[in-house]
Amino acid sequence: MLKLHGFALSNYYNMVKLALLEKALPFEEVNVLTAPPAGFKAISPRRKVPILETEQGFLTETSAILEYLEDSQGGPPLLPDNAFERAQVRSLARTIELYLELPARSCYPEVFFGGQVEGAVKAVARNELQSGISALRRQARFAPFVAGEHFTLADIYLLYSLPLAAHVADKLFALDLLQDLPEARALLQRLGENPNVRRIAAEREASREATVALMKAKLAAR
Amino acid sequence: MLKLHGFALSNYYNMVKLALLEKALPFEEVNVLTAPPAGFKAISPRRKVPILETEQGFLTETSAILEYLEDSQGGPPLLPDNAFERAQVRSLARTIELYLELPARSCYPEVFFGGQVEGAVKAVARNELQSGISALRRQARFAPFVAGEHFTLADIYLLYSLPLAAHVADKLFALDLLQDLPEARALLQRLGENPNVRRIAAEREASREATVALMKAKLAAR
Repeated sequence: MLKLHGFALSNYYNMVKLALLEKALPFEEVNVLTAPPAGFKAISPRRKVPILETEQGFLTETSAILEYLEDSQGGPPLLPDNAFERAQVRSLARTIELYLELPARSCYPEVFFGGQVEGAVKAVARNELQSGISALRRQARFAPFVAGEHFTLADIYLLYSLPLAAHVADKLFALDLLQDLPEARALLQRLGENPNVRRIAAEREASREATVALMKAKLAAR
Repeated sequence: MLKLHGFALSNYYNMVKLALLEKALPFEEVNVLTAPPAGFKAISPRRKVPILETEQGFLTETSAILEYLEDSQGGPPLLPDNAFERAQVRSLARTIELYLELPARSCYPEVFFGGQVEGAVKAVARNELQSGISALRRQARFAPFVAGEHFTLADIYLLYSLPLAAHVADKLFALDLLQDLPEARALLQRLGENPNVRRIAAEREASREATVALMKAKLAAR
């Protein structure tokens, strides 16, 4: 059986978890903070999660794991049949990751873990978040899903990256990233009603306090 | 016929160009600096290149374009047959992009375009480049190609991102990123002997002076 290593507070972990649940694939969850796999550092050199353990070995990097599930496992597809449309979904997923998730992520130490991020780094993040949201507005379809009529991998990225990016923008820059994007707000709400998404959110919230304490302790110990 | 929009100095442009050449697909090159497609800003909101123009429309984001070529066009495959191995190639490509290309890229304005990058931003980049190269060392196979016996998309990322990352590390931090990675140096040299790679390098160098002048003028006009 597939094993998903990570922790429920990680948004990338939850991307893969949602794909597994949507595809109704059996899998086991393993918390890397309390039970890291043997050789964790060799498996995931940057200590990133999630890690997918398969019969053939471990896989890292969310985008590669999501493609692997698509490629090799059953269940409803999360990419369209048509090659051009598949490329559009992948392109949207990258836009969300590169231009929203990553700039927001550079500020996570301050926003989530009680650390400090240098002003110059935050200034770059602020600019990038504003360009990123404009890029998403031009590229996304919201019809009603981000790439069109069907739920795809791009919606999974939207669901787990956009609210975090919006939270960072609000907290650090008093910017409302979704101000001119009511379609994104509506889609996030709709996605939030999906039972698998609700389950993931409930499990994330149940784990929050203990996980944050553990991560702060690890940061402080560095 | 496929049209590749971009310019020969862009390393991402050259990733797609190499995939097209390796697959022996007919394509036309269009310089976006001198002849941008109509509606360039709507097609590529962050003004990123390359853009692939297909019969069905425009595609952005290098990773999505590379997957599209793999998915829908003929020629020698650049991903393995086996789903697990395909995922390993994709994971390596992401490691190179996220942990080497992107931190180096945050310093490009200073290294390549006569601008200044804040010290705090450079400090983050320096740390990330060092973690990134360790990650690559643990994950790459170099047997002799980065993911194993065959030339894959991960080699294309290595070829066009690692030398730039090493250049930034050398120029800004006096760090030799490849010091403990002679296999990477050997592979880069081997890849450099590929006739398609030589052609791309020659076309890049022929375009360098005019392109840098154009880009500096655009930056100055902002």
